[in-house]
Amino acid sequence: MVESRLVGPVRIVGVGLLGSSIGLGLSARGIEVVLADASPTHLRIAIDYGAGRAAGPHDAPQLIVVCVPPDVTADVVARELEAYPDAIVTDVASVKLAPLQELRARGADISRYIGSHPMAGKERGGPLAGRADLFLGRPWVVAAHDGISYQRANAVDDLILDLGATLVEMTPEEHDRGVALVSHVPQVISTLLARRLTDAPGSALNLAGQGLRDMTRIAASDPELWVQILGANSDPVREILLAYRDDLDRFIESLTDPTAPGAERKVAEEIAGGNAGVARLPGKHGHDRRFASMVVMVDDTPGQIAKLLHEIGELGVNLEDLRLEHSPGAELGLVEISVLPEAVARLTEELAARGWRIAG
Amino acid sequence: MVESRLVGPVRIVGVGLLGSSIGLGLSARGIEVVLADASPTHLRIAIDYGAGRAAGPHDAPQLIVVCVPPDVTADVVARELEAYPDAIVTDVASVKLAPLQELRARGADISRYIGSHPMAGKERGGPLAGRADLFLGRPWVVAAHDGISYQRANAVDDLILDLGATLVEMTPEEHDRGVALVSHVPQVISTLLARRLTDAPGSALNLAGQGLRDMTRIAASDPELWVQILGANSDPVREILLAYRDDLDRFIESLTDPTAPGAERKVAEEIAGGNAGVARLPGKHGHDRRFASMVVMVDDTPGQIAKLLHEIGELGVNLEDLRLEHSPGAELGLVEISVLPEAVARLTEELAARGWRIAG
Repeated sequence: MVESRLVGPVRIVGVGLLGSSIGLGLSARGIEVVLADASPTHLRIAIDYGAGRAAGPHDAPQLIVVCVPPDVTADVVARELEAYPDAIVTDVASVKLAPLQELRARGADISRYIGSHPMAGKERGGPLAGRADLFLGRPWVVAAHDGISYQRANAVDDLILDLGATLVEMTPEEHDRGVALVSHVPQVISTLLARRLTDAPGSALNLAGQGLRDMTRIAASDPELWVQILGANSDPVREILLAYRDDLDRFIESLTDPTAPGAERKVAEEIAGGNAGVARLPGKHGHDRRFASMVVMVDDTPGQIAKLLHEIGELGVNLEDLRLEHSPGAELGLVEISVLPEAVARLTEELAARGWRIAG
Repeated sequence: MVESRLVGPVRIVGVGLLGSSIGLGLSARGIEVVLADASPTHLRIAIDYGAGRAAGPHDAPQLIVVCVPPDVTADVVARELEAYPDAIVTDVASVKLAPLQELRARGADISRYIGSHPMAGKERGGPLAGRADLFLGRPWVVAAHDGISYQRANAVDDLILDLGATLVEMTPEEHDRGVALVSHVPQVISTLLARRLTDAPGSALNLAGQGLRDMTRIAASDPELWVQILGANSDPVREILLAYRDDLDRFIESLTDPTAPGAERKVAEEIAGGNAGVARLPGKHGHDRRFASMVVMVDDTPGQIAKLLHEIGELGVNLEDLRLEHSPGAELGLVEISVLPEAVARLTEELAARGWRIAG
């Protein structure tokens, strides 16, 4: 059993993907979890799955995590604050300003409420989609506000750290603008692109490759959920979409006469602007840009890669990431090695001296 | 050696990703391949890599495959038609009408030319990105035209079938409209979304998840190449972008007052429309389905991966692909191993018996 920060019991209201994942993660750490859900079927599945036990009349939760759809979040949070006057309450809804405003408006005791939002999800929902490690290494925003003391908010920090997530503190406004850009606008754009496929000839769709598939994957998302999210965050989303439309207009204009003087330069600048934008995204784990990579060509025999890695180890260089590419027709395999940038020059030299072929 | 339809020799002009992949694939089938490239370095790498031999003065190719950027395709095709009066010539450029029109305009012998376009690619280019199995199961369009006889065009069909691709016959116009929808418009939309990240606060970018990453992956594409593609296919691309802009305007309008009567229904209909569009995409293609993968958890120490690979070799299992994931801060690395599906059960059992932790 891993040591945990939270004492528990923790009460989870709503056992969909997020609620059941939190329950599984905390249970795995030996923290007592009690579960509640409007659907008795979901509740039973989550309990069977190991996410916690059913809530009872005498539970005294230290922390309550509300994991229900955005449009009922404030409602359920208010009810929980009243029902458990000693508990700290948080929620995991993907908008943070609207629930706080609604709780304020109805005079709820927000000295015990602080909203949060784990940046983790899956295409599938429901308790059985839950995973104890869903939050591992993922950002989890705590939407700070002045109405709750630092000490009380601590329970939410403990929850996040116990689940292996990375705590990110933001104001509700910063959070909502941020997710508008990185999540809500991409959803709208994916949806609108997918709509263009509706009346396309099948012969064209048969040509689709990974690019289109990647870009329309999230277009398969649940309309009911997204009506709530976009409705609750419409201003930041609309603002970004307006700027995006200006860019689109300019792009369409540059295609109107692609051989006009300057038209090619304009298109190239647009594509280069996209290059620059995507380069700003942090690496897969937020840190991959720290590393430089090099490619070593190896003979297509089993022992070669082990030998290479062994020699890299002998040279005292730490391998940060590794990819193997092997083309069935080729006489060589390619090993792409990521190391700290300062190690590249020496490693290239030493490996070349030992007879390895460095491809770049 | 697998039996092949083509007799060869096949001459490949341009040994970037596509040219080198075609060379590797044909060489693996025992077909004689001769290579030419404007860059002596690229040519040397492709030859070392096993894609073919250097072109000589007495080559008599049956088929010539021109694999150069779109804006020089017609030029190189015309030159090859003249230099090899007995050969059939094809190209692999991602637009098909413009090169044909240009060849017609300059009076080239198009009775020996038929354009084609393999729907396969990778983010990385260059000869070393080549893979013999790049085209396996992928659509490969032959852009039919009346100027070439059925019998002569046969050599291109043989090329496609020998490389394991799926032959799709279309007119150049159908092809260009199709790729505008499934490839060129997605490129523009990804670029424009990525542009929105340019001046975003880093705190927002840190929240980015897989959705945004997937949608901006192709925004990292080469501006020079895309200027050529979009310029050569501007009318179909522009037409789709205009329809897309109408959808976008309507969406923005529905977010202007999200609580107005009917506004929620409109947003829900948009999202549902996206659901319907993406559902029309045929199932995932690709060669990687031949392999099954498993994840092994390793301690974060240099020798561990070499040890694991060494033991997999001892067990006589061929490693088809390998990915290392290492989350900073975590005490474990995850090694994702791809092997033939029939090897998974035994490998799991044997590695577990040797004390390795198999994560799935």
